[in-house]
This record gives sequence, structure tokens and C-alpha cells, in this order.
Amino acid sequence: MAAQHRSHPFSWLDEAAARRSAAGLTRRLQIRPATEHPPLMDLASNDYLGLSLDPDIAEAAAAAARAWGAGATGSRLVTGSTQLHAELEAELADLYGAESALVFSSGYAANLGMLTALCPRDGLLVCDRNNHASLIDATRLAKAGGAQVQVYAHADPGAADRLLAASNRPALVVSDTVFSVDGDLTDLPALHRTCRERGAGLLLDDAHGIGVLGPAGAGAPAEAGLVSDTGGRRRGCDDVVVSVTLSKALGAQGGAVLGPRRVIEHLVSTARTFIFDTGLAPPATAGALAALRRIRAEPQRPHRARAVARQFAQELARAGFAVQQPTAAVASVRAPSPDTAVVWQQQCRERGVRVGCFRPPSVPDGVSRLRITARADLGDEDVTRALEAITATAPPGARRGADPDHSHTP
Amino acid sequence: MAAQHRSHPFSWLDEAAARRSAAGLTRRLQIRPATEHPPLMDLASNDYLGLSLDPDIAEAAAAAARAWGAGATGSRLVTGSTQLHAELEAELADLYGAESALVFSSGYAANLGMLTALCPRDGLLVCDRNNHASLIDATRLAKAGGAQVQVYAHADPGAADRLLAASNRPALVVSDTVFSVDGDLTDLPALHRTCRERGAGLLLDDAHGIGVLGPAGAGAPAEAGLVSDTGGRRRGCDDVVVSVTLSKALGAQGGAVLGPRRVIEHLVSTARTFIFDTGLAPPATAGALAALRRIRAEPQRPHRARAVARQFAQELARAGFAVQQPTAAVASVRAPSPDTAVVWQQQCRERGVRVGCFRPPSVPDGVSRLRITARADLGDEDVTRALEAITATAPPGARRGADPDHSHTP
Ligand SMILES: Cc1ncc(COP(=O)(O)O)c(C=O)c1O
Ligand SMILES: Cc1ncc(COP(=O)(O)O)c(C=O)c1O
Repeated sequence: MAAQHRSHPFSWLDEAAARRSAAGLTRRLQIRPATEHPPLMDLASNDYLGLSLDPDIAEAAAAAARAWGAGATGSRLVTGSTQLHAELEAELADLYGAESALVFSSGYAANLGMLTALCPRDGLLVCDRNNHASLIDATRLAKAGGAQVQVYAHADPGAADRLLAASNRPALVVSDTVFSVDGDLTDLPALHRTCRERGAGLLLDDAHGIGVLGPAGAGAPAEAGLVSDTGGRRRGCDDVVVSVTLSKALGAQGGAVLGPRRVIEHLVSTARTFIFDTGLAPPATAGALAALRRIRAEPQRPHRARAVARQFAQELARAGFAVQQPTAAVASVRAPSPDTAVVWQQQCRERGVRVGCFRPPSVPDGVSRLRITARADLGDEDVTRALEAITATAPPGARRGADPDHSHTP
Repeated sequence: MAAQHRSHPFSWLDEAAARRSAAGLTRRLQIRPATEHPPLMDLASNDYLGLSLDPDIAEAAAAAARAWGAGATGSRLVTGSTQLHAELEAELADLYGAESALVFSSGYAANLGMLTALCPRDGLLVCDRNNHASLIDATRLAKAGGAQVQVYAHADPGAADRLLAASNRPALVVSDTVFSVDGDLTDLPALHRTCRERGAGLLLDDAHGIGVLGPAGAGAPAEAGLVSDTGGRRRGCDDVVVSVTLSKALGAQGGAVLGPRRVIEHLVSTARTFIFDTGLAPPATAGALAALRRIRAEPQRPHRARAVARQFAQELARAGFAVQQPTAAVASVRAPSPDTAVVWQQQCRERGVRVGCFRPPSVPDGVSRLRITARADLGDEDVTRALEAITATAPPGARRGADPDHSHTP
């Protein structure tokens, strides 16, 4: 019988591991100990505002664990919706000028739910080539449900426009606002204009914009003028839906979708990653809520995070590295190869600075790089020390030679 | 131009809402207040062992928020792996007799990652018809990647065997252990025998088994004899991979995959919902770890949860309801229609008992039911009071007449 000739169901994993190893692409977990000696400066996390370890926010999370429990105990539709979730949803909606908001257990789950629920069966999804993995998985799911998926060149609204013009289907344009690897911002006003003219909806992933861009961290849509402000009352567009994460600038965990009321009600009744998933744990919910309130009280934090990122990028470009000009809190520096990127990262670490290292398949263009994230709580001496570590340990081939006036755009 | 004829991108949602409303399938969030007057008895959550509000577990979550922060701050591959995650992974692997374990941000994410990473490109996925939504989404993603998907009749290992026999492809059988809606257990020994004979791998979702089934909550595989025990050292099979959730019996949030070392290493390097997702928040990680330790210290808890569920089912069957005989901590009672199910649930609530209500599309067979979960911390008086509330409020048509010897199997 045919089936008897099957080899062991997991033996192919050994060959896959050997191939990865030969290509220098094996990933290993590095475990953070409770205390590091010497302490490392963190330029690798997405804790852009330095809020994850803030005592007030940690205390809010701790209090929620005691009052509400360590977990939500069920789907948001069964027992998993607490008053904390409702408060967080109200404050998120308020920040973005949205009618309504819905919290998911992660930003990943929010993207899967948003896209699969909002794409009609015969719909067309028009997607930026460099969209985040969670949006790509979401389009794959939507495609399995009958949608058509078209991909346009990175950050090119004209290309999106041509795809919309060539089809009759109901359409949604899908894009990150700030792209996670390089930290570059897409041209939102142009993208939204195209959507308006073509009658398409616009779905944005503002994972790296919330808390960093816009007035007082109100995100990329506000920064791009997609939110009107009449007498202090913000109001988003009725054809735009935004997902955010609570795990980056807000220092907690979870995600949310923000938009018109009918959109959110539709998600409550149909989004599979909402209905069939346990609600976000109360400590994360309370932590994110406390972070939102802190940002409101200290609106200079987002500004500082962006200023630090710009400083990193400027100094590194001046020293001759291939740097993407940052718009949010991420600066990215190209490395000659995956292997040299890993060694560079390790040597920074030996000098007390933890930077990120992105390699295939985490980089849409196949180019490995160090990813340096700014934090609002870094002082000027921290920035100087970090720049010294990065510069002193650069591998051969990382610099194009000093180039003070030009920073690289891919 | 064609595109100008598009209607507003979200106007179709209003028609969808009207259709849902006409069919009685609109879902609304019910917000749990901080304190309920009068207090409700919870028989709707998945907090099977009553650990989510346990003071020690809440305190462990609170301490982790203070020591490690409200969030993990990055992907597990960047900054998101703490010592807490490593400890939790070691204890989970130990409980299941697995070589290794990997924690994800949710059970949903664990299932997506497990299945998409372990299914070879030309692979065949053989799936129980009633698998959980997260496994179904995972098979859709695997199919988009080139896999073939075949579905067999619920809990029918013979049907799975025929599908395996009819194909030459490398194959994985995918099943829930305990099915979430009815709480019924699949025939794991037979399913595993089939896999062995056909050279297929077995992927199990033990979301409702962990902490409830097996010796001291070691889960469905141990209960089914798929884990050997030599001198107190448990050892799982090398062709079985199990996902669990930390959000049900463990009272926290998150998920994990447990299995052979090469499987877990493969997930670290390739599972998209692992690589591209923020690590599980430290409070949830610590909460789950404390829950595991509590179960080890109080191994009678799982036993009590199962006994309470059996009592609910027996008494309700005796009273003439169509009840599924429970194997874990879930009892399920059929209702005549979605509408009557909702009213039944509301009337239980008015009598101080919160039960779950499952309706399409959350029920694989289209039959609405009340879902009653046992908790290890319920006393005998609680059980009596709950039974009174459920019985007294039953809608016409819910009882088939008293039937003491027979409980319904779908
Ligand atoms: C652009 C983008 N979207 C979504 C996510 C997923 O969010 P989360 O980690 O909260 O699941 C991430 C990163 O993790 C991201 O970078
Ligand atoms: C069988 C099953 N698998 C997976 C999940 C998802 O786990 P989580 O809620 O932790 O994401 C659930 C329920 O939520 C479930 O019932």
C-alpha cells in the first residue's frame, strides 16, 4: 500500500535544518535573564516610549491581575469582556477619532480578524508588497475565502491606483503605515485620495505609528491629515479602518481595530480571531490603558522618540552607512550579509548595546540589517555611547564611505 | 471608468447586519463589571480549575509585571524571550513528557504556527470535521502554501485511515483532543495507531485537556496512553506534536506547542506567528507558570473538575435534556433554536448562574446549545443551585422526556 512507503513524518525537518544552517539562517532564542551584567542598553525592542517597565504601568497591570485575574477566562463574547476592555476601547477610539474600537489578543490577531471579516467574498485586496507578515497571512485567508489579491510595489500609491482602476470588484487597499523593518512611512494622503476616487476602503496597520506619530501619539492617520479636528473633537474618515498593537509603544500586549461603528459591530459578529479566541488578559489590558493615559499626560514622549531616531540615522549616514531616513522611532542600517549582520549585532552586545538584527525571511527585500529603535527615555549620553558601539564594530563593506548629505532610500 | 461605480466600501455591512439580525445571530458584547449584584456563579468561562483569580497566581502575574514589565517588548527572537518564558517552556515540556516546548502569544497563534510550519509543501492534512476555528484557519493557510486538505467525519479514526491510505503524500492528521463545543474526546489511541501504520504525524490541540485530563492534569495524550512513564520519567511519542493553551485551565493567556526537539527548533526558525509576533506578556507567562506549579501541588483539582462535569451531565440527562456525556470539564445541553438558547441563557443569568450559549457559526453542526463548564472549586451546593436554575428555565422543546439511561451522542 502506498502509505507504507512514507518516511518518518518529521525526518524532513532535519534536512530543512541543515539547509538553514548552511545558509546562515538558523535562529536561536536568546533568553533575557532577570538582571544582566553589565546591563545592556536596549535598542532592539519596540518599547518606543520606554513605558513597558514604567512603575505606574506595571502597577496597573499588577492591580488588574489581582482584581480581574491573570486571564480573561473566555472569548470576549462569553466571559472575556471586562469593564477594563470597554474602557481601553473607548480611549483608543478617542485617540484615533474613531467611532468605535475592538481589542484582540494580539496585533497579529487584530490584522487577521480585520482583513478576513471586512473583505467581501468577491472582493479585491490591493496590498503593499512589504506589508507585515500578519497582513500577508490575512490576505491568504481572505483569498481562501474567494477574494482576489493584488500586490503593488512598495509605497507606490500610483501602482495601487492602477490596480483599482483595472477591476470592478469591491476593493480594499491594505498597507502598513510605518513599515516595521526600515521604519519608513507610506504616503497616506496619496493612498487615501486614490481610495476615495476609486471607491475603495483603506485598511491600515498602525502598529509602529500609535504612540509615536501624530499629535500626542495619535498615530499615522492623524499625522497624515486623515483625521479632522473640530473644536478638539477628532473624527476619522468613514472609509478608513486602522489596526494597532498594544505591544509596542504602549508596552503591553494585544491589538485593536478602530473604525466606523458598523465596521466594529461586524467584527464582533464575524471576526474569527475575535470570536474563537480568549479575550486579552486583564493585566495587559490595564497596562495598555495606563500607557495611553500616560501619553496623554506627557505628550512630549512621542516627540522625543522620533528625535532620537532621527539623530541615530543622521549620525550613521554621516559616518557612511546605508541608513533609511526614519519617520517614526526605527532606524535601519544595512549589513553586507546575514552572517556579518549577526556578528555585528553580537559585537554591539559585547559593548553593552542590544540592537535588532533582521535577516531573511524577516526582510522583504532579502537585505539583512541592524534595526535600531529609539526610546523616548534615552538621554544624549546614551545615544552617543550607542553610536560609538555601532560604528566601532561595523563589518567591512557596511560603509559606502562618508556621505554626509545622502541617506539611502531603497 | 469601472471603479467609479463602486458603492461605499462598507455599505454592504449594513445588509449583512440586517441578515444576521433577521436570523437571530447578532452578537453583542456583555461587559463584566468589577462587581456583580447579585454575584453570578460562573459556568461559562474556561477557568476549569478556578485558578484565574487564585491569589497566588494573581500575585505571580503582578510580580512579573513589576520585574519584567507589562509586555515582552518584542518578538521572542529579538527581546521577547525572558527567563520566565524559558521556565514555563521547561515545565510544560516536563508535564507532557515532551523534549521541548515553545510558548506563543495565544493558543490560536500556536495552532497557526504549528500547522503551517510542520506541513510540508506537498503535504496532506487529514482533519476532523469539527476541529477548532484556529486549526481550520491554519489548514487554510497551509493550503495556500500548497498542501492538500481532506476532512473526515467527526471523531472517526477509520475515516482518517481511509484518507491516509488513498494518498502517497507526506501526511499529518490534525484533531482537537477534547472538542470545545460538546466537550467530547476523540479516540486518540485509535487515531495514533492509524498514524503509526500509515507513517503520518499526529498534531493534537489539547486546549481543553491540559490541566483537566490525564494524571495530575498532564493532558489527553497521557490519558490516552500516548506517553510512556518509566520510573517517573514521562516520554511522549516522536510522531506526535501537541498544542495547548494557557488561557483555560491555567487561567492566564497564551499558547504553546510541545514535541520533539527538532520540531520545536523548526518552529523557532520558521513559524510565522512566532517570528512575527510579540512574545507573550510576562504577567501571563508567570501566571501560567504559577498555575502549573499549583496543579502539581494539588493534583486532585483536575479530578474534581471532571467529577463536577459528570454530575451536571448525569442530572441533566436524567431530567430529559439532550446532553453530551462529558469526558473533560465541559457539559453541553442542546436547545431547540438559537433564539430559545439565548433566552434560556438570560433566564439562568437572572437566577444568578452564568452559562455559555453557543450558536452558529460557533457550532459545527448548526445546533445551538448551552455550554456548562465545571470548575474544580464548585461545591456541591453550587452544583445543586446551578442545576435548579438550568432546569427551571428550560424552553419548551428542550426536553425529550425523562431518559435516565441514555445521554445523547450526536
Ligand atoms: C507592522 C506590524 N503589524 C502587526 C504586528 C503584530 O503585532 P503583535 O506583536 O502585537 O501581535 C507587528 C509586530 O509584531 C508589526 O510589526
Ligand atoms: C480547541 C481550542 N483550540 C484553541 C483555542 C484558542 O486558544 P486561545 O484562546 O488561547 O487563543 C481555543 C479557544 O479559545 C479552543 O477551544
